[in-house]
Amino acid sequence: MNVRFDRVASIQAAMRERGWIALVVLNHDDYRYLFGTDRTQPRALIPFQGPPELIAFSGEEPELRASLAEGKVRVFGSVGGQIHDIVGRLREIAAAAPAEWAAEGRFKVGLQMWFATPAFLVDLFKQVNPEVEVVSSDPVMDPLRSIKEPAELALMTQAQRIAGLGMDRVRELLRPGVTAHDLATEATYAMMRAGAESTSTPVYVNFGVETCMLHGRLSPKPLELGQLALIDLTPQVDGYCANLARTFVLGEPDARQAELIATYREIVASARAAMKPGVTVAGLDGIAHGVCASHGFGEYQVYGLGHGIGLRFEEPPASTIIPQHRNLPLAEGMTVTIGHTVLAIPGFGGVRFEDVYRVGASGPEILSDYPTEPIVPA
Amino acid sequence: MNVRFDRVASIQAAMRERGWIALVVLNHDDYRYLFGTDRTQPRALIPFQGPPELIAFSGEEPELRASLAEGKVRVFGSVGGQIHDIVGRLREIAAAAPAEWAAEGRFKVGLQMWFATPAFLVDLFKQVNPEVEVVSSDPVMDPLRSIKEPAELALMTQAQRIAGLGMDRVRELLRPGVTAHDLATEATYAMMRAGAESTSTPVYVNFGVETCMLHGRLSPKPLELGQLALIDLTPQVDGYCANLARTFVLGEPDARQAELIATYREIVASARAAMKPGVTVAGLDGIAHGVCASHGFGEYQVYGLGHGIGLRFEEPPASTIIPQHRNLPLAEGMTVTIGHTVLAIPGFGGVRFEDVYRVGASGPEILSDYPTEPIVPA
Repeated sequence: MNVRFDRVASIQAAMRERGWIALVVLNHDDYRYLFGTDRTQPRALIPFQGPPELIAFSGEEPELRASLAEGKVRVFGSVGGQIHDIVGRLREIAAAAPAEWAAEGRFKVGLQMWFATPAFLVDLFKQVNPEVEVVSSDPVMDPLRSIKEPAELALMTQAQRIAGLGMDRVRELLRPGVTAHDLATEATYAMMRAGAESTSTPVYVNFGVETCMLHGRLSPKPLELGQLALIDLTPQVDGYCANLARTFVLGEPDARQAELIATYREIVASARAAMKPGVTVAGLDGIAHGVCASHGFGEYQVYGLGHGIGLRFEEPPASTIIPQHRNLPLAEGMTVTIGHTVLAIPGFGGVRFEDVYRVGASGPEILSDYPTEPIVPA
Repeated sequence: MNVRFDRVASIQAAMRERGWIALVVLNHDDYRYLFGTDRTQPRALIPFQGPPELIAFSGEEPELRASLAEGKVRVFGSVGGQIHDIVGRLREIAAAAPAEWAAEGRFKVGLQMWFATPAFLVDLFKQVNPEVEVVSSDPVMDPLRSIKEPAELALMTQAQRIAGLGMDRVRELLRPGVTAHDLATEATYAMMRAGAESTSTPVYVNFGVETCMLHGRLSPKPLELGQLALIDLTPQVDGYCANLARTFVLGEPDARQAELIATYREIVASARAAMKPGVTVAGLDGIAHGVCASHGFGEYQVYGLGHGIGLRFEEPPASTIIPQHRNLPLAEGMTVTIGHTVLAIPGFGGVRFEDVYRVGASGPEILSDYPTEPIVPA
């Protein structure tokens, strides 16, 4: 384990500024960000001062202790006991905290409130721990995590290249009669063989009218000549996520397909031209709207053209999840996709082309270029 | 789509008994259970009376309407708007509900509070909808879902057979130098080619001391001669989950390995002999404890020998998540694993053998038998 004590120190400084007594880590992404590795049930506690603390099952203790020479490991013997042990430890930390941090006798504790934090766990935590107030850890973690270090960019670039290998395999197999399941199977295999540990979402493969789905699952019927095929691949490397979506047409596109594709490519080009520090997703959506409207597709636009990406598949700005993120200005060093939302004519079909970019001082830097040629000879 | 109106009717009857005005479905498993299909962002609402309601993005509307001749589809144009539209619809339903169902002016709405329901979504829902009280849907859904119909058992059996094919592939590849990542890649490919849509958990492959992990992720170092290898496979077919865990030793096991393996096989045999309607996980754990103690491993036992399984990987009884489930009596027709918890000597290694059973009137019926032979010739 390669504990990132520098990141721990930054978090502790930010917590002290806000008067939080601790951060409870139950999620893979924060755990990996802080401890340089992952485990199936990540459990850690960052007090406002002092060394970070890991919580392990008793059987795991020796292995964890051996891999963590410099840290401190607290050990609990049962699954059901962990939350109670966290509560006990929080009481000790609270006793050492400045009294003025408490509001109405309750100290604040940060917790990631994202998809991986289930509602029942937070409820349970609140029940057994009425002495603390659980707050979203976003204000402390987001500023730190959204700016990617070179080593993080390298892993994300590798993941994005692997997505390209998966897409290559899909392209090879696109022919009449191929099923979405076959494509997902082969793409997954190609990406795992190239080093992906998994994908951060299901593999999405949609044909024909089902390309209208915002994120469709696997289409049930085989691909037919002339249909749109929309593929979205999200391999992960060391927890870092990639996101590559492409739309293909098997054979010659008809006029509407060609117009949708041309429009989307223009949307991407316009958004890339505007993607500089300070721009917001709302701003990019506005630009996309102008392009859509000029092609007569204004009514079909879905907002949320891009999203942040990193150790989580969606990071700030994640405007389709948290509407306020629409107005979050991009900053240099963020990694953001363009092409998240489908442009679809209901009942007909939809297209999108999504890639990941680093926000550079003077414009976007694509992590790994991949062709956008949509036509696959039948 | 094959809407299960019979299940909808059962849910509505149970809701009316409890005075709930609606069930909000945001999870894949309930969605599939009710609508016979899945979508990436499942959104449905079951009012206490009248037809079920699906919520779609505008681009998805025609496809959804075409596939759902008998139902009612409500359509919303943006992602951020869905929750507000659910709130609006709940108000209409509340207006038609018996006033005496409201406690302090608030009507109850059921929501699945499991891993897939994120805390922030429930918070948001409560914020925008102070007029309803969100309650866990478990009391309504669990009795219905835990007893499996023949068609459900057929899918689970197919998934369990596919897990066996993945395990066959792992066995073929077990040799000095193979990596956990290679095994996960090949097992995933074998299972997807055989029809698995995905796995419900990561593929777990652990070697040597890392077999101590409750559910270890992929071990980083290649397999060595004489090491324990623990593999846990969880393919899904039409959403139904399988769970097959096996422990192997590459070459001749040493005395402690052999003793751990013999103990676990005895635990499984004893638990199977006791697995009848009425027994609880606590009861099975008690039996396992006797076996562990007789081999001198009493201190290493972890409670929670089995768990329910179905459209969710862990269903009631899920005692390692919800401690009260330890005392839930098994009923005929439930599907339950035996072999969930590892028996591990910290710093040395652990073993387990897990399969899925239907609880029959006179004992367990294994869904798909798979060899338990642990030794792989080196």
